[in-house]
Amino acid sequence: MIKALLFDVFGTVVDWRSGIIRDAKLIAKKYDIRFHPEQFADRWRYEYQPSMEKVRSGKRKFVKLDVLHEENLEKISKDFGLDIISKVDKSWLVKSWHRLPAWPDSKSGLLRFKSKFIIGAQSNGNVSLILNMSKFSELYWDVILGAEVVGYYKPDPKAYKKACERLDLKTEECLMVAAHNDDLKAAKKEGMKTAFIPRPTEYGFNQSSDLKPSQDWDFIVDNFHELADKLKCKKEG
Amino acid sequence: MIKALLFDVFGTVVDWRSGIIRDAKLIAKKYDIRFHPEQFADRWRYEYQPSMEKVRSGKRKFVKLDVLHEENLEKISKDFGLDIISKVDKSWLVKSWHRLPAWPDSKSGLLRFKSKFIIGAQSNGNVSLILNMSKFSELYWDVILGAEVVGYYKPDPKAYKKACERLDLKTEECLMVAAHNDDLKAAKKEGMKTAFIPRPTEYGFNQSSDLKPSQDWDFIVDNFHELADKLKCKKEG
Repeated sequence: MIKALLFDVFGTVVDWRSGIIRDAKLIAKKYDIRFHPEQFADRWRYEYQPSMEKVRSGKRKFVKLDVLHEENLEKISKDFGLDIISKVDKSWLVKSWHRLPAWPDSKSGLLRFKSKFIIGAQSNGNVSLILNMSKFSELYWDVILGAEVVGYYKPDPKAYKKACERLDLKTEECLMVAAHNDDLKAAKKEGMKTAFIPRPTEYGFNQSSDLKPSQDWDFIVDNFHELADKLKCKKEG
Repeated sequence: MIKALLFDVFGTVVDWRSGIIRDAKLIAKKYDIRFHPEQFADRWRYEYQPSMEKVRSGKRKFVKLDVLHEENLEKISKDFGLDIISKVDKSWLVKSWHRLPAWPDSKSGLLRFKSKFIIGAQSNGNVSLILNMSKFSELYWDVILGAEVVGYYKPDPKAYKKACERLDLKTEECLMVAAHNDDLKAAKKEGMKTAFIPRPTEYGFNQSSDLKPSQDWDFIVDNFHELADKLKCKKEG
């Protein structure tokens, strides 16, 4: 019996790419920099996995995602002409991850889930990132877990196990909800139930990955409300 | 400028004594045990500080409060004739801390605070305890911090410092709200703002401690709504 739903956040609950593009455009306008904000967002995100991999592999002690985002921005700044912007604006841009917009079904879907289950953010984002973003986009979690709380970045097996332990629940009592097959694969391995919800424009209109489920997950749905129906949640949260 | 309100929970937000008495009575009835549930609740709570002190002093590695509650119950069981109850019922009784009722102003007051500030539970209770209790009593935190997340029991100075760090806030941007002068004293020492709200029946009608503020705290109020008014929160959350 499922007691808690744990959510991947970037891509699954929020549209990170649009949020980064929006704020990058504001910086570009302020400094009259010409660049493709889409390319900038994709490039910044491209540095995401390798930077966490250093932590996952043990090459580096755990640092929170805000730190990795800042370092990764520093790394690509020159290529996009962003090396000229002020320290304050750079810090504001790093915090664009704290101001990501939700997909249209996220807020209302989460409220429906919340009426029946524990809902938790199980993201690689740090606590303040997920918290600020959730205040910004009105995502009413019962609990914020994730990398900074459990001390491990997904898909490290410990990230899933320790999150369920924090809730005092068996892994099979927790449903991992994600738009990414790899995330679900790792969660399933630890005994969690799995729900796949494709977000076909997470990487823009030419997205080629995660358009379809790679396995026969416990739930395969098109949006949060379809999952709420399947889980027999009330129509309104 | 205050950005987040961090709350003590036992006593400040919830009426732990009534909750424990309620569930102890059910157990007593089931097993036909005669005892004073009020005395039982007070005795169980009496073991609370010394058990945490072992962790604070470094004599013992950090263990979560559920574990201490279980050990403390074990310790006093015989005195109350509770050594005869089943393992399942003992475990249910330990979890009575997960089912505590809120004070009448807590739910609505928190919603008002939430409309303007980050609201977080900064309790010595572990994550699942605070989470389950909050689902039970409809307390809609933005974030659950506290001993298990930061690794320290209040009033250890690190408990306050690390909680603010998790929020990416300076201690002076965080307001500690508590019904206990000692908690506020420790929070103030770390630079937090302080709000005192007496809960004169936390320990029953003969309570003698924490009836009055011991210092000139930043806010001294009679209930959550008075604090919400002073902080200029909307009338409804």
